[in-house]
Amino acid sequence: MALRIGVIGVGMIGQDHIRRLTTVLAGSTVTAVSDTDAARAREVAARFAGVEAFATGEELIASPAVDAVLVCSWGPSHRQYVTAAIRAGKFVFCEKPLATTERDGLAIIDAEVAHGSRLVQVGFMRRYDPAYRAMKASIDGGEIGAPLMFHSCHRNASVPSHYTADMAIVDTAVHDIDVARWLFAEEVSEVMVVTPKKSARGGLLQDPLLILLRMAGGAIVDVETSVNIDFGYDIRGEIVGETGTVALAESATVLVKRGGTVAARVPEDWRERFSRAYDVELQDWVDGCLAGTASGPSSWDGYAATVVTDAGLAAAASAAWAKVNLRDKPSIYG
Amino acid sequence: MALRIGVIGVGMIGQDHIRRLTTVLAGSTVTAVSDTDAARAREVAARFAGVEAFATGEELIASPAVDAVLVCSWGPSHRQYVTAAIRAGKFVFCEKPLATTERDGLAIIDAEVAHGSRLVQVGFMRRYDPAYRAMKASIDGGEIGAPLMFHSCHRNASVPSHYTADMAIVDTAVHDIDVARWLFAEEVSEVMVVTPKKSARGGLLQDPLLILLRMAGGAIVDVETSVNIDFGYDIRGEIVGETGTVALAESATVLVKRGGTVAARVPEDWRERFSRAYDVELQDWVDGCLAGTASGPSSWDGYAATVVTDAGLAAAASAAWAKVNLRDKPSIYG
Amino acid sequence: MALRIGVIGVGMIGQDHIRRLTTVLAGSTVTAVSDTDAARAREVAARFAGVEAFATGEELIASPAVDAVLVCSWGPSHRQYVTAAIRAGKFVFCEKPLATTERDGLAIIDAEVAHGSRLVQVGFMRRYDPAYRAMKASIDGGEIGAPLMFHSCHRNASVPSHYTADMAIVDTAVHDIDVARWLFAEEVSEVMVVTPKKSARGGLLQDPLLILLRMAGGAIVDVETSVNIDFGYDIRGEIVGETGTVALAESATVLVKRGGTVAARVPEDWRERFSRAYDVELQDWVDGCLAGTASGPSSWDGYAATVVTDAGLAAAASAAWAKVNLRDKPSIYG
Amino acid sequence: MALRIGVIGVGMIGQDHIRRLTTVLAGSTVTAVSDTDAARAREVAARFAGVEAFATGEELIASPAVDAVLVCSWGPSHRQYVTAAIRAGKFVFCEKPLATTERDGLAIIDAEVAHGSRLVQVGFMRRYDPAYRAMKASIDGGEIGAPLMFHSCHRNASVPSHYTADMAIVDTAVHDIDVARWLFAEEVSEVMVVTPKKSARGGLLQDPLLILLRMAGGAIVDVETSVNIDFGYDIRGEIVGETGTVALAESATVLVKRGGTVAARVPEDWRERFSRAYDVELQDWVDGCLAGTASGPSSWDGYAATVVTDAGLAAAASAAWAKVNLRDKPSIYG
Repeated sequence: MALRIGVIGVGMIGQDHIRRLTTVLAGSTVTAVSDTDAARAREVAARFAGVEAFATGEELIASPAVDAVLVCSWGPSHRQYVTAAIRAGKFVFCEKPLATTERDGLAIIDAEVAHGSRLVQVGFMRRYDPAYRAMKASIDGGEIGAPLMFHSCHRNASVPSHYTADMAIVDTAVHDIDVARWLFAEEVSEVMVVTPKKSARGGLLQDPLLILLRMAGGAIVDVETSVNIDFGYDIRGEIVGETGTVALAESATVLVKRGGTVAARVPEDWRERFSRAYDVELQDWVDGCLAGTASGPSSWDGYAATVVTDAGLAAAASAAWAKVNLRDKPSIYG
Repeated sequence: MALRIGVIGVGMIGQDHIRRLTTVLAGSTVTAVSDTDAARAREVAARFAGVEAFATGEELIASPAVDAVLVCSWGPSHRQYVTAAIRAGKFVFCEKPLATTERDGLAIIDAEVAHGSRLVQVGFMRRYDPAYRAMKASIDGGEIGAPLMFHSCHRNASVPSHYTADMAIVDTAVHDIDVARWLFAEEVSEVMVVTPKKSARGGLLQDPLLILLRMAGGAIVDVETSVNIDFGYDIRGEIVGETGTVALAESATVLVKRGGTVAARVPEDWRERFSRAYDVELQDWVDGCLAGTASGPSSWDGYAATVVTDAGLAAAASAAWAKVNLRDKPSIYG
Repeated sequence: MALRIGVIGVGMIGQDHIRRLTTVLAGSTVTAVSDTDAARAREVAARFAGVEAFATGEELIASPAVDAVLVCSWGPSHRQYVTAAIRAGKFVFCEKPLATTERDGLAIIDAEVAHGSRLVQVGFMRRYDPAYRAMKASIDGGEIGAPLMFHSCHRNASVPSHYTADMAIVDTAVHDIDVARWLFAEEVSEVMVVTPKKSARGGLLQDPLLILLRMAGGAIVDVETSVNIDFGYDIRGEIVGETGTVALAESATVLVKRGGTVAARVPEDWRERFSRAYDVELQDWVDGCLAGTASGPSSWDGYAATVVTDAGLAAAASAAWAKVNLRDKPSIYG
Repeated sequence: MALRIGVIGVGMIGQDHIRRLTTVLAGSTVTAVSDTDAARAREVAARFAGVEAFATGEELIASPAVDAVLVCSWGPSHRQYVTAAIRAGKFVFCEKPLATTERDGLAIIDAEVAHGSRLVQVGFMRRYDPAYRAMKASIDGGEIGAPLMFHSCHRNASVPSHYTADMAIVDTAVHDIDVARWLFAEEVSEVMVVTPKKSARGGLLQDPLLILLRMAGGAIVDVETSVNIDFGYDIRGEIVGETGTVALAESATVLVKRGGTVAARVPEDWRERFSRAYDVELQDWVDGCLAGTASGPSSWDGYAATVVTDAGLAAAASAAWAKVNLRDKPSIYG
């Protein structure tokens, strides 16, 4: 009765998903793992009763003990595993990015369209965050009139030394981009990148950035990425409508008064801030697999995110608006 | 490997726990139900594969297919089922109140002491609420110095017509009383009840109340209960320490500006406000049962709550301080 | 055209009022000062053009160059100067306490009644604070239904070593008492004092206190006084009505995110917190004097505050409810 | 001893300043008025004892009964009156805009430089708002590291029908521009204007706008102007530094819980929001005049604002970055 899940890629995020599936969520069991590092796959499998380590993701996908597949491997390998799962007719949850190139995204869409219905969910967890959901409900409920602007801030206390300028767009702002597409229920048509004075905390890294999106319907989105801001992980968002605004509230649970201030904790990192969103996201996927339906962020959303971030990289290079050109949207994506 | 749970009492709350165990939490399966209404037990059992309806709670407890017991029956029956589970050596989670009389509470404690170790957890879910936990961490971490006072407000939008004056103490304030005992890690030594002007919204009901507790170490707690306050379910709390204070923050996730105000939603009821606390509480119990340990609110906490609320009822009748007399605390309760 | 003011008592508060009248407010000029310390009076007079130092408050009051009198002398001398001003038919603003004994308060009332109309305003500045005024407007506008309870907290970072237990009631809580009378537009009928565990920061001082008031209409007020709480000057208040509540918001103007928290400043002391209230209060008095009318807190309010704090002292000694017995209210007080 | 002020232009804002000077602030008296509508000047003069109506601003400026001049006339006339006041060696406060053309701004600067010291203060009242001052103190105190970005929102509930697209930049965003120059203590080097989807509430008006400024040191400012947003007058601002942020807090004084929400009032208009700033600004000017010094926003600030808004208009027309070219800064402006 429980959904039997195979996990491809058991690095940090893969292991965290296994922990979540086995100790937090209902309705599933992990039966298979694989990893390009075979020893790691065997080591992880050995920690759990009833988990088999497979030599390749393809063998894992083919296993009759696997009902659904969770892809947590390196980004460039996503196309390979996701299309294999689609061909096997199995539901697949793929961590973001779905595709590191537009071509990979198109290939996945082609495979899914050939299958004839959705099988893929992409890991844009913010859509499952209670605060973003309340924001969307407020917009969709007409509380603030037609949405015209979206101010979004994505702040990290720090990033590792291997973090590159491209990653501010491709890894960081991609979440704000997906949220914008979802909140407005519209595609992005153009991107521009403005570079403020560089923070001395990031070495050579151009940080912060101000990324502008023009949505298909004309709304404007501005995204601040500040990835070395020291004080904490701070996700801000405000939609400006014709008659009102809706904004994310601070997420603290208690207020402490001492030493001259009243203060609330800022989350340390994305794990603390989005812990619930990850749980709800994956539970929703498990429930959907058991019910035989796919929902949540689709391959189309993953493909569109890649095309928009590609445009963002072009915009950063040109300092001008860069167009976003998407293929026609197949009907299976609604 | 999953914990096999039998649920005694499958009214609203029992069914909600079954939903939680089967569709939200990890690690358990419901295998048995019983209810004084046998038809209802059969009806609930029929909804789930692999669930057996037992004629009595005692038979359910005795079943080899039941590893642990969840008691959601009528309060006066708690002693009967909880002591039976203890005698069977099975872990038991009992919804509050553990006991409707001091005698019942003592009987449960005697049974557990005779068993030699803790088997019982009582459903004081606030101890699992992230905000209360942050408050406790702040106190225990010394952020505000020694705690001296606790201001607590317990507000319900409305209560059903069968809600009586006693229930404001026994059903409502009991949560604030348990939280006070837990936050201060001290017993209550005296109780007083002050009766403000009566709200016209509650008919004959004396509402609101101001309930004062003197803790064993001298700290003072004031609890406002307002159970017909219309605007929503509003749980406020602030600990006043020697050098600072810590207070529950508002729980809203978004702020909406429209029509001249900036506003946040107030929870509608306890389900909305404490939904996460219920999940965390029961997952913690399941995890503990699987690990062979009991933690969380104990029989002692359930017994003490009953003695304090009994003193509260006496205090309400006398308009003076009423003493709280507890038996010696058995060593199994730490 | 400007109101010519004589100031009796030019210690710290008297000098601050002179500063306020001459450099902040419109419509007045200070023409006379007096002080029991004649040298200080001369020294202050010498700092301002056109200010005369008088040997006694009575001579100052009698001066034709004085239109209105500001009494900032030692509390026990208030009766003497206020009644002299009333006999001279001059408007008089008296810093709190109006009277240090019930007898003094009655004497002032008798004098004013003999005069036939109000001449006195007492320095309960909170009634001029924008936040308390908004709170009163919310209650009076019916936004929260009939008011049933008032939770008030009065927290000082520290008090000088000469601060005694009585002062927590007579000097500190007196503000909360006046605000309660004003917000409810009702007298206090009973007082009780509950003593929590003593803060180690106050030496022998019993701090904090929880002071309960029962209003004439039955509403209950609880006042926390914490006068050595270190973190700052923190004035909290919440009125609980039948259908809602209204509470003072935090007063900070900016929020700073750094070092893991989002924080707002807490005022350092009453000067910072109520600076505007003092300005508005005194401007209102000047405007009233120029218009020939008296408003704001009256002798009656000053007298009632003294009787209530006297009852508070009795209650602190007895640990029981102490009755508040007021004389009949003369018609000039509305 | 009081500063004798002549007011040129006694329309709504001029009359409001007269009210402020005569009934709110200390240290001044209004002795003269003039207006292009001579009947209105006479009517206003007749309302106050000792106020003379002059036929022209020049005659008012020349009057020996006028120590300092307050210019509240139509913008295009500012140059004429301000330069006349400078030539007369009198302090002059000029409502914004100081100049409606760059040429007028330069003429005023030339006159003041010829005079040899500052005589002019421009009415950018936000610099006197307690919240903006706290923000500046936080930046200057190093609390958030070097400032890199500034997010500013300027929202009006509605604007009159004669409000044109240019006014969003010249009348509305000019305040955010001045605040940015002041907070960063840097000039603006470039401007860009992005036009979101148009609000249906503003007829043909392009509203909202997103205006970007690049500061001389590289920091980026984004200004949202939404001038028909219905819900109220909402001024938001957040400075993003290298290690933290500082943001304007909501300005409400009380929180009301009722009907399912906890809500705070949003100011209705700029009068409500900046009432204190106007008072502090003008008191500061009066105090400075009495002390023989000029401070606050200078002619240079007024000139720079005009050049930046001119660039803004050019940017709006071109959809590209427009350069801001300022003349050399004379030494009298520090």
